[in-house]
Amino acid sequence: MSIRVGIVGISGFGGGEALRLIAAHPAFELVYAAGEGSAGSRLVDRFPGVPHRLAGLVIEKWDPAALPDLDLLFASLPTGTSAEALARVPETVKIVDIGGDHRHVEGWVYGLADIWPDRIRGSRRVANPGCFPVATLNTLAPLLAAGLIEPGNIVIDAKTGISGAGRGGGDSRFGYAETNENLQPYGLLQHVHMPEMETTIEQLGGGSAAGLVFTPHLVPMTRGLLVTIYCRGSASTAQCLDAAREFYADRPFVRVTDRPPQTKWASGSNLSFMSYAADPDRNLVIAMGVVDNLGKGAAGHAVQNANLISGLPETAGLEGAPVWP
Amino acid sequence: MSIRVGIVGISGFGGGEALRLIAAHPAFELVYAAGEGSAGSRLVDRFPGVPHRLAGLVIEKWDPAALPDLDLLFASLPTGTSAEALARVPETVKIVDIGGDHRHVEGWVYGLADIWPDRIRGSRRVANPGCFPVATLNTLAPLLAAGLIEPGNIVIDAKTGISGAGRGGGDSRFGYAETNENLQPYGLLQHVHMPEMETTIEQLGGGSAAGLVFTPHLVPMTRGLLVTIYCRGSASTAQCLDAAREFYADRPFVRVTDRPPQTKWASGSNLSFMSYAADPDRNLVIAMGVVDNLGKGAAGHAVQNANLISGLPETAGLEGAPVWP
Amino acid sequence: MSIRVGIVGISGFGGGEALRLIAAHPAFELVYAAGEGSAGSRLVDRFPGVPHRLAGLVIEKWDPAALPDLDLLFASLPTGTSAEALARVPETVKIVDIGGDHRHVEGWVYGLADIWPDRIRGSRRVANPGCFPVATLNTLAPLLAAGLIEPGNIVIDAKTGISGAGRGGGDSRFGYAETNENLQPYGLLQHVHMPEMETTIEQLGGGSAAGLVFTPHLVPMTRGLLVTIYCRGSASTAQCLDAAREFYADRPFVRVTDRPPQTKWASGSNLSFMSYAADPDRNLVIAMGVVDNLGKGAAGHAVQNANLISGLPETAGLEGAPVWP
Amino acid sequence: MSIRVGIVGISGFGGGEALRLIAAHPAFELVYAAGEGSAGSRLVDRFPGVPHRLAGLVIEKWDPAALPDLDLLFASLPTGTSAEALARVPETVKIVDIGGDHRHVEGWVYGLADIWPDRIRGSRRVANPGCFPVATLNTLAPLLAAGLIEPGNIVIDAKTGISGAGRGGGDSRFGYAETNENLQPYGLLQHVHMPEMETTIEQLGGGSAAGLVFTPHLVPMTRGLLVTIYCRGSASTAQCLDAAREFYADRPFVRVTDRPPQTKWASGSNLSFMSYAADPDRNLVIAMGVVDNLGKGAAGHAVQNANLISGLPETAGLEGAPVWP
Repeated sequence: MSIRVGIVGISGFGGGEALRLIAAHPAFELVYAAGEGSAGSRLVDRFPGVPHRLAGLVIEKWDPAALPDLDLLFASLPTGTSAEALARVPETVKIVDIGGDHRHVEGWVYGLADIWPDRIRGSRRVANPGCFPVATLNTLAPLLAAGLIEPGNIVIDAKTGISGAGRGGGDSRFGYAETNENLQPYGLLQHVHMPEMETTIEQLGGGSAAGLVFTPHLVPMTRGLLVTIYCRGSASTAQCLDAAREFYADRPFVRVTDRPPQTKWASGSNLSFMSYAADPDRNLVIAMGVVDNLGKGAAGHAVQNANLISGLPETAGLEGAPVWP
Repeated sequence: MSIRVGIVGISGFGGGEALRLIAAHPAFELVYAAGEGSAGSRLVDRFPGVPHRLAGLVIEKWDPAALPDLDLLFASLPTGTSAEALARVPETVKIVDIGGDHRHVEGWVYGLADIWPDRIRGSRRVANPGCFPVATLNTLAPLLAAGLIEPGNIVIDAKTGISGAGRGGGDSRFGYAETNENLQPYGLLQHVHMPEMETTIEQLGGGSAAGLVFTPHLVPMTRGLLVTIYCRGSASTAQCLDAAREFYADRPFVRVTDRPPQTKWASGSNLSFMSYAADPDRNLVIAMGVVDNLGKGAAGHAVQNANLISGLPETAGLEGAPVWP
Repeated sequence: MSIRVGIVGISGFGGGEALRLIAAHPAFELVYAAGEGSAGSRLVDRFPGVPHRLAGLVIEKWDPAALPDLDLLFASLPTGTSAEALARVPETVKIVDIGGDHRHVEGWVYGLADIWPDRIRGSRRVANPGCFPVATLNTLAPLLAAGLIEPGNIVIDAKTGISGAGRGGGDSRFGYAETNENLQPYGLLQHVHMPEMETTIEQLGGGSAAGLVFTPHLVPMTRGLLVTIYCRGSASTAQCLDAAREFYADRPFVRVTDRPPQTKWASGSNLSFMSYAADPDRNLVIAMGVVDNLGKGAAGHAVQNANLISGLPETAGLEGAPVWP
Repeated sequence: MSIRVGIVGISGFGGGEALRLIAAHPAFELVYAAGEGSAGSRLVDRFPGVPHRLAGLVIEKWDPAALPDLDLLFASLPTGTSAEALARVPETVKIVDIGGDHRHVEGWVYGLADIWPDRIRGSRRVANPGCFPVATLNTLAPLLAAGLIEPGNIVIDAKTGISGAGRGGGDSRFGYAETNENLQPYGLLQHVHMPEMETTIEQLGGGSAAGLVFTPHLVPMTRGLLVTIYCRGSASTAQCLDAAREFYADRPFVRVTDRPPQTKWASGSNLSFMSYAADPDRNLVIAMGVVDNLGKGAAGHAVQNANLISGLPETAGLEGAPVWP
């Protein structure tokens, strides 16, 4: 069976990673690619290592009215730019939106695939969670579900590789010489990712109001994302680990580890790692989560969602181990 | 069809990359892993992201007399340590040796798969080329075959990522703080890789004696290998590119590009990139080749060879595009 | 005026950075160097770029009974190994201990030079603060002194470059290939740095008991250290910035910035950067501090302390701007 | 004595490094800074770690008609943009041009300071050599002067860190994610640096025509530059080393080493490292040279030249050892 898929936003990092995964996918056939800066080029001009069979595909200018016959579209467009255009994609074409415009929007299911695969399976419109939210929510979900932490008092210290800042057209703030050996906090007390996280934490925690502090940092590495989360709760380390192992018992992409997870463990994969360290005497639980921001944080998760809504095995095309070293 | 494979040398970078590729391979089933430093551990203890089905496999102490029922063994052992032990592996078990002990050794075929797939197909003992040789030989072969350069006067300026130096047990010369921001030539006028390259260059060039200068450099990056090769010859750039495109016309893993190749183009893949720039007025041809030193330079090439000797499609398990960014 | 100084522990990163600073210092003359792994070598064999006048100095085996005529000794020895030997250094030789064995030990002054220069000036035995503590304490001191945060509820999320893990003789955990692209939390809920920080926070805060959570992370960069600190307090951002600017009004190495500080701002320098972001409605103050872990976190701070106890201008030999990019 | 200096081109990497060195210089007082993108900002807004005494200096729009009272101007402007403007700087103001517009131009001395300090000393207009040329010329000069290599047959394989590509305003080709783990040859058989190198090689070699092949590569590191040079000549390794040690006998910034030099040896310094490996049986000499492309390759060399034309000790402000690690 071959499922005809397209990618819009192929010039960006998320779109490029979707291409990589689709190129090796056993059921998806790429028949359409569109991108802003690269329209008119062949795929091989932009991606010199693309398989021969895809090399000559010409990148189109993005136009929802001029789609070929498609079963599924991966959209990876800058936040704020996609709502209108995606609304014009025919209903017959399923969409997985890697971008940020349809999270918790009516008519779209929030695609937190490791937690709610059944909600996703029947859908035709899936909004991928953001990279920081998916790492945070996957890590906290078992504790929230088991009532082991207080949703109202959560401090998230988040760290992402530079590709998390997007490709952006050459902002010199993300130049190699400026960024190498440079660790930077940013966006202090701003709330771009907050509503998405708060809404879901409240759902996972049974309705209590969420109270979050969220501080992202840019780390001098290309890929990788770690959240270190400080929570209030009286559970022991073993209770937290047990809760997570039970919660994710049969989920293929989750790894609960005794050791603190490291970003390189997930590199190039769709995996989600988590671990916990608690001090009940101090009412303290530290939860740690790792994903590849372009994998589980973007294109890997999108392929997982696409598998779910296409009736494929959830792991199709995602079975490789992470790249190491 | 499932082919039962094993890996010996799982603790090293080459063995780890073999594991990654085998884990996603459609026909290979990993049933045996052996390693020096890691014997007694489960795979998941060393490779936290390994698929669930392989997680519990216990790493054995390497003993050729105690192999399980195997169809094929990948060997990735330090040079100088494997000849005797591999001689004791039963003939029924095919071997692909990633290490350096069986190149141009009687009873073993030299596994330069992009050039001589037919020599390899019928064999049961394949010696993988080294990482520097494969990049050099793949890049020069079309020019040598077409008589466009002189085999007797070749200067190879080679650059490899740090994983090319092997894992080694923690040599502080390869520590992060010592190696980052540090570009180092090494092994000047020494000849470890020379006989392997000279022998093959003579075969590819129709018998004329090879004369090589070879200078390796260690580059502050994890993976990637580039050779910049200065040759004598009166061909034009177009003639060199044409010769390479014809020579590799139907080969799946070779990419001949107009632009100079970049190491990241090959990252995580089994691809071999090459380009050329010539100045006939000066009798000068510059040939450039890029591979991932752990892909085409080690484990990717080994899987390609294993596919060939197992009667599988040459590209099985190797179809993904490179990791980018 | 020339002050005769020595370094013991020249093989490590802290000792090497002390050498770099002393080589350019207007008043210090290096007459003695000792080191474990490098005894018998000349300085130039270990530090190929050392000035000609120091090149031939032979590194000695460390023996406190065989010191030459010295005014001052910089000690940079592994924690737990220096107490007995340093006790045997003659009283006439002043000591600045970069290592961890004499912090808050009787007979030694705790050398927090940006805060307590007057305590240090008259001393002959100074214990340098650790790299995490100095970043934390410098950043929090103004808030504690002004009563703007609660000492009993402080969460420190700390991030350091790999040189912060020390040189260590080639631990493969710190190899380039293993560490590059890898962000790692470690030492969860362990307390090595805790007593040093708690004691000083209590002093700075007027005696109230300190309650700290401290989570260090290893970041793939050579140098640089950032602490992101979550505190309880009702001050505004402006109040915090004002408190810090007043507290450090005439201190030469402190920089209070409106923007969140970045590690590269401090690279190669003795500077201490800090900024704050507060949300009074949530009783939340986020304090951020940056130092170079080998500068203000080790050798730079040691030279500042040595200047103070030698009656020199505090900035002697430390006047350069940071290395950028 | 205080010499009043200015910098034009403060926004670029070369101008920024000049600022760093001038800030710690014992005789230079910075009284003027001009820059394209940063005009109107204070120095501290662009360089958060600048010493307090320089913090408030406002960056001017570059206008040679509106200079303050200056003794010396460091110019670091993009090639092709400075000739007309620098011609309008009053004769009373000495100029050291870090940019590329005045090399081998009438009225300007070519500032190859380690080789020709006496030519420079009396001058008022000095053109700094480019970064690739200075590494190449310093390394080859002793061999050319002693007639140990043939000027007509020289292959230069050059490698530079990303800052060598300049700041450029955010070209996405130099973004962190695109550049990290990426080694790239570029500018094959193009000749931007050629005339400068050829002219000087002919001077150093006594007039014989130079024949050069020059291939630059971009290496994923911020600073550092290595040239690996393949020459024809029958000298032994020892003869080459001896020739270099004699040629540079009393020069403060040159280091001739037995081992191949590494880029990190020079980081942050004005040093020039070189070594040689020869095989007389093959008529082969390999010469290797290392500099920091922003140090000896740009601003360090400029300060050395400024010292020479100001009658200061050549090493003033340049005495520190390199930054390591």
